Amino acid sequence: MAIQDMDRLLDAVRHALKTQDLPTALQLVQQLRSPDQADLLERLDDQEQALILQRLTPEDSADILEEMEDEEAAEVAASIPLDKLADIVEEMEPDEAADLLGDMAPDKARTLLSQLDDAAEIRPLLLHPDDSAGGLMTSEFLLLLGEMTCAAALQAIRQWDPEQDDISYFFVVDENRRLRGVVSLLKLVSCDPVTPVHEIMDPDVISIQAGADQEEAARIMSRYDLLALPVVDESQVIVGVITVDDVLDVLEEEATEDIQRLGGTEPLDQPYLLTSAWELFKKRIGWLMLLFVTGSLTGTVLRFFEDDLSRVVSLSIFIPLLIGTGGNAGSQTTNTIIRALAVGDIDLKDASRTLWHEIRVGVLIGVGMGIFGYIRAILWHVSPGVALTVAIAIFMVVLWATSMGSLLPIIATALKIDPTVVSGPVMSTLVDATGLLIYFSVARLIVLRGL
Amino acid sequence: MAIQDMDRLLDAVRHALKTQDLPTALQLVQQLRSPDQADLLERLDDQEQALILQRLTPEDSADILEEMEDEEAAEVAASIPLDKLADIVEEMEPDEAADLLGDMAPDKARTLLSQLDDAAEIRPLLLHPDDSAGGLMTSEFLLLLGEMTCAAALQAIRQWDPEQDDISYFFVVDENRRLRGVVSLLKLVSCDPVTPVHEIMDPDVISIQAGADQEEAARIMSRYDLLALPVVDESQVIVGVITVDDVLDVLEEEATEDIQRLGGTEPLDQPYLLTSAWELFKKRIGWLMLLFVTGSLTGTVLRFFEDDLSRVVSLSIFIPLLIGTGGNAGSQTTNTIIRALAVGDIDLKDASRTLWHEIRVGVLIGVGMGIFGYIRAILWHVSPGVALTVAIAIFMVVLWATSMGSLLPIIATALKIDPTVVSGPVMSTLVDATGLLIYFSVARLIVLRGL
Repeated sequence: MAIQDMDRLLDAVRHALKTQDLPTALQLVQQLRSPDQADLLERLDDQEQALILQRLTPEDSADILEEMEDEEAAEVAASIPLDKLADIVEEMEPDEAADLLGDMAPDKARTLLSQLDDAAEIRPLLLHPDDSAGGLMTSEFLLLLGEMTCAAALQAIRQWDPEQDDISYFFVVDENRRLRGVVSLLKLVSCDPVTPVHEIMDPDVISIQAGADQEEAARIMSRYDLLALPVVDESQVIVGVITVDDVLDVLEEEATEDIQRLGGTEPLDQPYLLTSAWELFKKRIGWLMLLFVTGSLTGTVLRFFEDDLSRVVSLSIFIPLLIGTGGNAGSQTTNTIIRALAVGDIDLKDASRTLWHEIRVGVLIGVGMGIFGYIRAILWHVSPGVALTVAIAIFMVVLWATSMGSLLPIIATALKIDPTVVSGPVMSTLVDATGLLIYFSVARLIVLRGL
Repeated sequence: MAIQDMDRLLDAVRHALKTQDLPTALQLVQQLRSPDQADLLERLDDQEQALILQRLTPEDSADILEEMEDEEAAEVAASIPLDKLADIVEEMEPDEAADLLGDMAPDKARTLLSQLDDAAEIRPLLLHPDDSAGGLMTSEFLLLLGEMTCAAALQAIRQWDPEQDDISYFFVVDENRRLRGVVSLLKLVSCDPVTPVHEIMDPDVISIQAGADQEEAARIMSRYDLLALPVVDESQVIVGVITVDDVLDVLEEEATEDIQRLGGTEPLDQPYLLTSAWELFKKRIGWLMLLFVTGSLTGTVLRFFEDDLSRVVSLSIFIPLLIGTGGNAGSQTTNTIIRALAVGDIDLKDASRTLWHEIRVGVLIGVGMGIFGYIRAILWHVSPGVALTVAIAIFMVVLWATSMGSLLPIIATALKIDPTVVSGPVMSTLVDATGLLIYFSVARLIVLRGL
C-alpha cells in the first residue's frame, strides 16, 4: 500500500485505545511504514503516543521517533519512562538520537545519555549547532585505508553492522583519518581482491567543514549529485558523514520557510494541521502589524496631499491600482532574485549586473503598463491630464519597484539578514509610500498646476 | 576546490578562445567538475560551446551535457556534427540522453538515434512525457531473480558495467520481471554465498506507475528516504528506476517555480542571469496586466462611492492600508496552504478542516488588527465614526481574506489548476474590491448616515 487513508485508520486506533484494546491499536500501527506511523501518532495526544511507543519493539519505535518532527519527538519522549526510552534511543541513528537529546530537558537528556551504550557515538554530535553541517551529520560510518586491499576492505564492510544499509560509497583516509578519497561499494565488489583501495578510489572527493551552514551542505550535495558528503575539521580529519535523505529534508524545509516568509508569516514549526489557530495567529500578527505600521506611511502621504485629493477626487480612483501595480512588479522581482540567491544562480558579486538587468526589465514593463494604464484611465472618462499622470506615475513606480526589488534582497544577504524577511515590510514601505509621492508629484506638475 | 571563481576562469577561457588557443581553453575547462564545467560553458555562445565539447573526451562532454539546462543542451547539440554528437550521447545516462533527444529537432533526433548503439535503451524512454515518473526514470538498471544465490547475484553485479556506480540497492523480480522485493548491495556483500536472494530481500518495496506525475515520485522518495524508486507498468512489471539525484532536481525546480509564480511571474526556463531582459519582460507583463485588470475593479468600486468619498475625504486615507492588510492576511494564508498542499501536509479531504482553522485564525487576527487600526485612526485625529468604520472594516476584510485564502488553493487543486497560478489574480480581485465594498458599506452605516 502506498499512501494510507490516515483518517479512517486514526479513528480505528483511537477507538481501540478508548476501549483499552491496546493489542488492536498496536496491530493497526504496525501495518504502516514508519513515516506513516509517525504521521498517525502525531495526531494522538502525548500519553497515547507514549503508550504505543513503549509497546512496539525498540527498533520500530526508534524508526517512528526519527520520522517525527523534532519538537514533537522530544515531547513524546518526555512521557516515556527513562529505561524504555534508553532502549529506543539505542536503536536510533546517532544523528537522530543527538537531535532528540538536544531538544529534551537538559537534565533528563544527561541522565538518558549516561544510560546509553552508544553514548560515545552520540556525544560528539551534540557539540554542533542543529543548523550546521556538523548538526546534520551522522557518526555512523566506516572508513577505509588506502593501503587496504579490496578483499580486506570488503571483509571490514561485512563485519560492520550499521543501522542503515543503503550505503553506496565509502571514504578513504590516511593513518591520521585525513580524507584522501572515495570509492563506491560497486567498485569494491568488482575489483581484483589484491588491488589496494587507493588504486581504485577517486581522490577528487568533495567535503565540507563541520561549522558550515546545513544549507551549504545541501546545495553542494544537490549540485554534485552526492549521496553522502564527508564532514571534516580544519585538518581534513573526517568527523562525520551527511547522507542525502537528511539533505532532502533540509531543502524541503528551507523552501517551505522561504515560501511562508514570502507570504509574510513566520515559518511554522510543525505541519499545518498540527499547528493550532492560536499558534498561527502568533506567527502572523507580528508581520501584519509591522506591515500596517510601514503601510501607514501611505496614509501620511495621503494626508499631506488631502487638499489636492479633495480638488481632484478622480485621482483617488487610481490609488489602489497604482500601489498594486508597484507592489506586484516589486514582488515579481524580489521573489525571482531571492530564489536565484537561494539556489546559487546569483551571488553578491552579481549585484550590479542584476540591478542593470532589472532596470532594463523595469523600463520595458513600465512602458507597457504605463500605456495600459493610460488606456484604462481614458476608458473611465477621466480628464486627459489625470490619464497622463497615471501613465507617467505607473512607469516611474514600476521602474522604482523593480530596481529596489533587485537590490534589497542582495543588500540583505550582504548584511547577513534573511532576504525573505526584509523584502515584505521594506519593499511595501519603499514602494507604496514612494509610489504615492511620485503620483502626487506628477499630478501637481500636470493636473493640479492650474488649480 | 569547492566552488570556483567562475568569472575569472570564464575570462581566461574566452581569452584563450579569442586567441585561437584551444588547448589552453580545454585545459582550463578540464580542471573543473562537470556541474561547474556546464555552468561555465553556458556562459559562452553556442559555437564556442560546441567547439569545446567536440574536443573534450566523449565521456567528459557527456557529463557536461547532462548537467546543462535541457533547452541549452539541445541548442549546443545542434551545433555539433552528428557523428561527434553520437559518440557523446553514447556515453550519457539513458534518461539524460532521452531528455536531450526529446528537446532536439525531431528529424535530427531520429537520425541521431539511428546512429546510436544504445538506441534500444533510449527508445522506450522517449515514450513518456518529460514531467511523468516515466520521463524521469533511467533504463540502466540490473534486476535480480529471487531464486539467485547471493554469490550468483554478486557475480551478475560484477559483470554489469553501468555509467553510474553509486548504486545502493537492487530490485528483485520474478521470471516475468514483476517486482517482488529490494535488497541492498551491503546485504548482498555480507550474506552467505548460498543463500537465495529472496530470503534476504525486503518484499515491502514501494513503486510508482510510469504515468504518475514526477512530483509524486519526488514526494514518495523524500517521504520514505529512498535512493532509488522502481517504475512499473499496470502489471507490476518494472520498466525503469528513478534515482534520488533526479528527484533532488525535481524538488528544487518545483519549489523555484512555486516561488516565482507566487511572486506573480511565469517560471523562468533558465537560471536568472542567463534569462534576457526581454524574456523576463515577457514572463512578467502578462500577469501584471491581468492583475491590473482585476485590480481595476477597485477603481470601479471607488467610482461608485465617489460621492461618499468627496463628502468624507478622510475615508480615502485608509484605502491603501485596508487593502494592504487584506492582501497581506490573504497571502499569509495562501502561501501557507499552497506549501502545505505541495508537501502533502493537507489534501482535498482537509478542505473543511482547513477553512474552519483559518476562520478561527481570521477572527483572532481580525480582532487584533481591528483594534490596532482603530488606535492608528484615532492618532490621526479622524472622527470616531471613521475610526470605528476602519476597525470594523479591517476585521471583516481580514476574516474574508483568510477564509478565501484557505479555500481558493484547495478549490484550484480540486479543479486540477496549479494553485499558485490562481491565487494572485483571483485573490486580489476578491479581496481588494470586496474589501472596498465592505469598507464603504460599513461607512454608510456609521459615518455617512447623517450626511
